[in-house]
Amino acid sequence: MRVNVMVGGPREPIPVETVQGYRDETWIGVDHGATLLLEWGITPVAAIGDFDSTNPTELARLKTSLDNITVYPPAKDFTDTQLGIMTAIKNYQPDEIVIWGATGGRLDQELANLYLPMQDTFRDYLHCITLVDRCNVVRYFRPGTYAIHRRPGFDYLAFVNLTPVTGLTLPDEKYPLVNWDSPIPFAWSSNRFTSAVNHFSFDTGVVAVIWSRD
Amino acid sequence: MRVNVMVGGPREPIPVETVQGYRDETWIGVDHGATLLLEWGITPVAAIGDFDSTNPTELARLKTSLDNITVYPPAKDFTDTQLGIMTAIKNYQPDEIVIWGATGGRLDQELANLYLPMQDTFRDYLHCITLVDRCNVVRYFRPGTYAIHRRPGFDYLAFVNLTPVTGLTLPDEKYPLVNWDSPIPFAWSSNRFTSAVNHFSFDTGVVAVIWSRD
Repeated sequence: MRVNVMVGGPREPIPVETVQGYRDETWIGVDHGATLLLEWGITPVAAIGDFDSTNPTELARLKTSLDNITVYPPAKDFTDTQLGIMTAIKNYQPDEIVIWGATGGRLDQELANLYLPMQDTFRDYLHCITLVDRCNVVRYFRPGTYAIHRRPGFDYLAFVNLTPVTGLTLPDEKYPLVNWDSPIPFAWSSNRFTSAVNHFSFDTGVVAVIWSRD
Repeated sequence: MRVNVMVGGPREPIPVETVQGYRDETWIGVDHGATLLLEWGITPVAAIGDFDSTNPTELARLKTSLDNITVYPPAKDFTDTQLGIMTAIKNYQPDEIVIWGATGGRLDQELANLYLPMQDTFRDYLHCITLVDRCNVVRYFRPGTYAIHRRPGFDYLAFVNLTPVTGLTLPDEKYPLVNWDSPIPFAWSSNRFTSAVNHFSFDTGVVAVIWSRD
């Protein structure tokens, strides 16, 4: 099953109309993300976080509206987003986790969210995590050979080695690449699909693929 | 000297009032960033890019207003941002480069900008590059021991190893860390200064320090 996790980033980059298309699925609200879900008429199955960006009125409303809400102290061993994803995994053993509200605003939190799937706790789920905002869809890949599909409305395609990488090959994209190694992270941005399905492969490292639009 | 480079990201995250405080300094406009500078009453010493996000009327105005404008084809060996920073280095040998307009919108372009200082072409300037938006100030560090200063209005402090890191130590921050190694990138977010000056050190890798606010 698919679990959607709405984390507490700024609201502007969240594609509300796309969220509404997922409204009947399973949602977990993280921190202020739980309040946003209620505002959009979606009742999450669980809410979790320190709720330090949720005012007392909103928090009271969450407690009244939800069966399952867990409030942590602000100084804790895990970030709110980590706790949200851990809840998704523990309660639902999902085969797909979509993270919303993870971008924009504070870059330290955005990078914490972007890098989360590589952590020991989440690595087994790396291949089934997707991060979505208005302009971007991000997926994560371990070494292998993959086919990727064009997404309507998303003109650009990017390959980003989040770790050192070896053997990155883009055989059939608009701007191909053969057997590229890099000890530093690099974003091959603004590439394009040449057909409905394109391919890539690499030997070591973690690569994020980003479908994006202006 | 300091050179400011306005790149062509979305306008919302750009702190216009802070830009105005730098208006009498040297500016380079990259792609749509050149148009934004003119709009804000700042005439850049150079404009560069493929200008694919600049409409014909704006481009004509740029050509009339600026002494130095270089238009590249969209398919080229360097990104617009790379070309802008290369121009800053070649023409001014700056001891400080501030990059504006590098965040928000397309994540592939944001990550390309974030990772740029680690590339061979720019590595000698890594320590003098700062990336600024409304919520974040980012600086880059190579192995060593550093003192960092609190910035008024920026409550949060983060340490992000963009590459594998060894020996990361935060001796006197609110949440300390001792001799931490990691093969994957990780954002130690939401830390805090405990006084006007705090310290950190590490042995290998590249670490970004982010001062941020909500």
